[in-house]
Amino acid sequence: MKLPVVYLPDIQANQPEIPLTLTRVGVTDVKKLVEVARRDKRPIVLVSTFDIFVDLPSDRKGANLSRNFEAIDEVLEEMIKAPVFEIEDLCGEVAKRLIHRHEYALNAEVRMKSEYIIKRETPATKIKCQEVVNIFAEARAIRGEELEIRKMVGAEVLGITACPCAQEIMRDKAKKELIALGVEKDVIRKFLSAVPMPTHNQRGRGIISIEVYDSHFVSLERIINIIENSMSSQMFELLKRSDEAAIVELAHKHPKFVEDCVRTMAQKIVMEFPELPDDSIITIKQINEESIHRHNAFAERKSTLGELRQEINSIC
Amino acid sequence: MKLPVVYLPDIQANQPEIPLTLTRVGVTDVKKLVEVARRDKRPIVLVSTFDIFVDLPSDRKGANLSRNFEAIDEVLEEMIKAPVFEIEDLCGEVAKRLIHRHEYALNAEVRMKSEYIIKRETPATKIKCQEVVNIFAEARAIRGEELEIRKMVGAEVLGITACPCAQEIMRDKAKKELIALGVEKDVIRKFLSAVPMPTHNQRGRGIISIEVYDSHFVSLERIINIIENSMSSQMFELLKRSDEAAIVELAHKHPKFVEDCVRTMAQKIVMEFPELPDDSIITIKQINEESIHRHNAFAERKSTLGELRQEINSIC
Amino acid sequence: MKLPVVYLPDIQANQPEIPLTLTRVGVTDVKKLVEVARRDKRPIVLVSTFDIFVDLPSDRKGANLSRNFEAIDEVLEEMIKAPVFEIEDLCGEVAKRLIHRHEYALNAEVRMKSEYIIKRETPATKIKCQEVVNIFAEARAIRGEELEIRKMVGAEVLGITACPCAQEIMRDKAKKELIALGVEKDVIRKFLSAVPMPTHNQRGRGIISIEVYDSHFVSLERIINIIENSMSSQMFELLKRSDEAAIVELAHKHPKFVEDCVRTMAQKIVMEFPELPDDSIITIKQINEESIHRHNAFAERKSTLGELRQEINSIC
Amino acid sequence: MKLPVVYLPDIQANQPEIPLTLTRVGVTDVKKLVEVARRDKRPIVLVSTFDIFVDLPSDRKGANLSRNFEAIDEVLEEMIKAPVFEIEDLCGEVAKRLIHRHEYALNAEVRMKSEYIIKRETPATKIKCQEVVNIFAEARAIRGEELEIRKMVGAEVLGITACPCAQEIMRDKAKKELIALGVEKDVIRKFLSAVPMPTHNQRGRGIISIEVYDSHFVSLERIINIIENSMSSQMFELLKRSDEAAIVELAHKHPKFVEDCVRTMAQKIVMEFPELPDDSIITIKQINEESIHRHNAFAERKSTLGELRQEINSIC
Repeated sequence: MKLPVVYLPDIQANQPEIPLTLTRVGVTDVKKLVEVARRDKRPIVLVSTFDIFVDLPSDRKGANLSRNFEAIDEVLEEMIKAPVFEIEDLCGEVAKRLIHRHEYALNAEVRMKSEYIIKRETPATKIKCQEVVNIFAEARAIRGEELEIRKMVGAEVLGITACPCAQEIMRDKAKKELIALGVEKDVIRKFLSAVPMPTHNQRGRGIISIEVYDSHFVSLERIINIIENSMSSQMFELLKRSDEAAIVELAHKHPKFVEDCVRTMAQKIVMEFPELPDDSIITIKQINEESIHRHNAFAERKSTLGELRQEINSIC
Repeated sequence: MKLPVVYLPDIQANQPEIPLTLTRVGVTDVKKLVEVARRDKRPIVLVSTFDIFVDLPSDRKGANLSRNFEAIDEVLEEMIKAPVFEIEDLCGEVAKRLIHRHEYALNAEVRMKSEYIIKRETPATKIKCQEVVNIFAEARAIRGEELEIRKMVGAEVLGITACPCAQEIMRDKAKKELIALGVEKDVIRKFLSAVPMPTHNQRGRGIISIEVYDSHFVSLERIINIIENSMSSQMFELLKRSDEAAIVELAHKHPKFVEDCVRTMAQKIVMEFPELPDDSIITIKQINEESIHRHNAFAERKSTLGELRQEINSIC
Repeated sequence: MKLPVVYLPDIQANQPEIPLTLTRVGVTDVKKLVEVARRDKRPIVLVSTFDIFVDLPSDRKGANLSRNFEAIDEVLEEMIKAPVFEIEDLCGEVAKRLIHRHEYALNAEVRMKSEYIIKRETPATKIKCQEVVNIFAEARAIRGEELEIRKMVGAEVLGITACPCAQEIMRDKAKKELIALGVEKDVIRKFLSAVPMPTHNQRGRGIISIEVYDSHFVSLERIINIIENSMSSQMFELLKRSDEAAIVELAHKHPKFVEDCVRTMAQKIVMEFPELPDDSIITIKQINEESIHRHNAFAERKSTLGELRQEINSIC
Repeated sequence: MKLPVVYLPDIQANQPEIPLTLTRVGVTDVKKLVEVARRDKRPIVLVSTFDIFVDLPSDRKGANLSRNFEAIDEVLEEMIKAPVFEIEDLCGEVAKRLIHRHEYALNAEVRMKSEYIIKRETPATKIKCQEVVNIFAEARAIRGEELEIRKMVGAEVLGITACPCAQEIMRDKAKKELIALGVEKDVIRKFLSAVPMPTHNQRGRGIISIEVYDSHFVSLERIINIIENSMSSQMFELLKRSDEAAIVELAHKHPKFVEDCVRTMAQKIVMEFPELPDDSIITIKQINEESIHRHNAFAERKSTLGELRQEINSIC
């Protein structure tokens, strides 16, 4: 039973008492089931959380927030028929529609985040297992002669980090112990290069985001791979005993500070995204949930890809 | 039993393999018991959570993170003897010490947040009750010929917001009903101006932060008061029946969109902080946990105080 | 490259130093992509979080936790080929495999939770929209002559609750106002029965769980429907102005305390699950995120279905 | 300005439409500033979160929830003048008042939780530092000829756990390497008993709660000490390099599964609480935030103190 169409007051279109421009008006924590057909991978279904904003001029009391839902539902509906998007393109498409539907807005902004399941293999026994990573994207549409779209895509992946500092001290201790027991220097050197010494190790959380203009493609798979390979070792949900030993040895042979993880990610980004323009904005973070402290260790690098390239290349 | 002082390798001071500058290196989620003696109020004891960062040059493998703890513990210790700080000054003081302790850093950044208990009185029965607000502060010290300090202080306070749009529709409905029942226009007008009609109402979350140079004082109490008085009504932990009715009536007589709350806060900031300079940075947010939706409504204004003043004054 | 099979010490099988029985040993916060083909609905894909436990006898140092993953992965794998499960049956199936794989365990316990998207229509404009509910299930397998399985399934759904107490006071106020304005008693009565008066209203959170023996089927769809229909009104992600007005009116015509919501759910469970046995365990909760307070209101009923039936039927 | 006392309808006292008994009615997430003067320690000020419930008979529509606040405020007020409570006694006192104020209730239940700062010293450099632990308490008052009170108190403390299984495999590897390098068996034995081999280690979370009748005293300090000393090592907020090395060595010389931590806590409880009666209810949990997995490892023992004593003593 559809209600008869009656006149309803549109309070939002009124003049506000205090005529002030607003930077962002919208809705947050909107959950949607999304199907994305990606360029370099199989399509995926995601439960995603969206934040959707437009700006508001000083002569309008409110934004018509239900239009945000119409814009996103329209895009999600069309995607089922012609699924040709990455998650950041989905955000871009919604941002475009928002600009059209909110005729008073100069900017529209769409953010989404989701959990995403990837398939991996355990290191020694080669058993298949599912791993969860967090992915996120943003897009901003700016009204002008031509509509300009900036978009961002990124991921957060967990891994293991082992501390180089405590390990060096433990290595010194092992060396002194072996010397005191009369073991030859050469044997000690060979032993300590084959068997890593203990240190504290913990869950690390690597985060990369890359922001570009609409026309560029940023592979989310490559971002995830870079984060996975920039800590002391990957982590896995399923590990048989031989896998566990392999992971412990690997992590202890590649001890890394939070700072090292960020620098490694930066270097890999420069190497693996040669096609992206210099004005791409790169944010790299590493958070280690220290096993010896209640607090976390943190490192961050934020700059343009051009600056990163210059610093990295000046090394070689 | 104190261990003998032995030589320990300082891995952090080494050259990193990838010599890249880092924007931020530090610790997050550090909890500390803090005693603050404030300019316009009684001293308070807070359990606070700190994030503490410095930047790192390209020729250093790591920051000595334990120095962050020494800096903060030193300041907290001294405060017990000479307690003369606001929370943003506490952050500023820690940031200063960080610049001294990390001789390689150009910037130091300290953020804190805490729950803070304020005393209020119920609106009708005037019973005393405790209310909890979230407070936060930041400071950034920038090394230069003279050390420059920017600091920020803010609060997040809960209140009630009632929707003007749904209320207007319900008011129309009541009017038509009364007309149909043969009640006179004048009586209807008087009735509807005395008794507010229903609408959806919900928990609102107002947030203000103000950033200034070191030498200025920003009253946190005034910030809290502004937020409390910019929604449809304050909320209270303890309400007897007559208080509850008073609150419901008050909220329904002052219906407000998220946009209205932000604009009201902006106007009050311009009026109540005449002493602050034009280059103060003001961030105002309102988040309504909509009772008719699972998602939240959101509005934000971010600008300099100078811009706010211009827009507000051009109205009058 | 598969590593050669080498002898690896099985520390878990050792005698523990302190030979004490443990109630639960296992893993928590395990995320898995799950496909469930349900009896009364289309199949669904869910990102689910699992907790998986067995008990441990006093003569074993540790449980082989990787077996928990093998059990769950095996079940998830088989489900793709022969998908015949509800979420609680999935938990039951995993619990059964755990009992077989952990030959030393007497009990196995599996819990899962997930977000689940349902389709709804807005009340006035009949637009289709997606709503998110939280669903959860548990199963416990108890080793004996025959393996006994208890299973539980439930949901948490958001809706609107409007307070009857504040509304009654506002109604009294409206009545007095109309009397003072000289309106006739009969007109007042008619007006107040047609137009509801204001009150505080908020997000409510209804929760039902039902625990039964393995052989019984509990419809999750029916549980969700009961919760949706036991508050003052459902909530929707998308509401045009006429929908919003309809929802506000509906909610204000059905004011409900937390207590009322729990009692309504209890009555509906008795009516809509006549086929379930008396020893089914019913837990019903309602949490209201009060718009006039920072805290929540809460009510709960926990009992067997037999007890509920007796209390409800003694009324009629 | 106090409003005139007017008649206000007490909807809560009405007959409900569905006359069903409710197990729990109340408020959750109530924050209060609490001052506790404890038997074995200096007084403390805490920001605490309370949940407060009574049961409700079938002939009452609602509980008068504002009375919960009056009860707690009254107790908190009196405590300032005569501060003689533990946190569980505070809960007990509030539960007693609830039974008096809700004349229709048979049970009252009060739960509180809080962060609590303790002072510790770093292991090597003996620097003082603040550590945060989570503490919690509950009390239930049961109306009868005499009012019966059960109370519970507990804590959650973070520490380090190092895995014995991976370490044993790494030890085997080190042994084989040393044999291959021609080192003598006796030297190898001495070296491996002096220097621990690597393994994965992580943040562990130990939890103990003890429930007794009103007349017994349970030392919260002793509970905290037991948890701290049942993992591979304590953790500290501030660690200089020599402290860090000491902690890493200590943790690796005491590798522990989740199961071991629970059993160690159980044994210590039996030893350190000889004065508590056999019917005390003991819950012990350990959660390890595995560094090699995204999920957590978990172990639990729940039983009476009498049962624990019997199992532990039958060992010796």
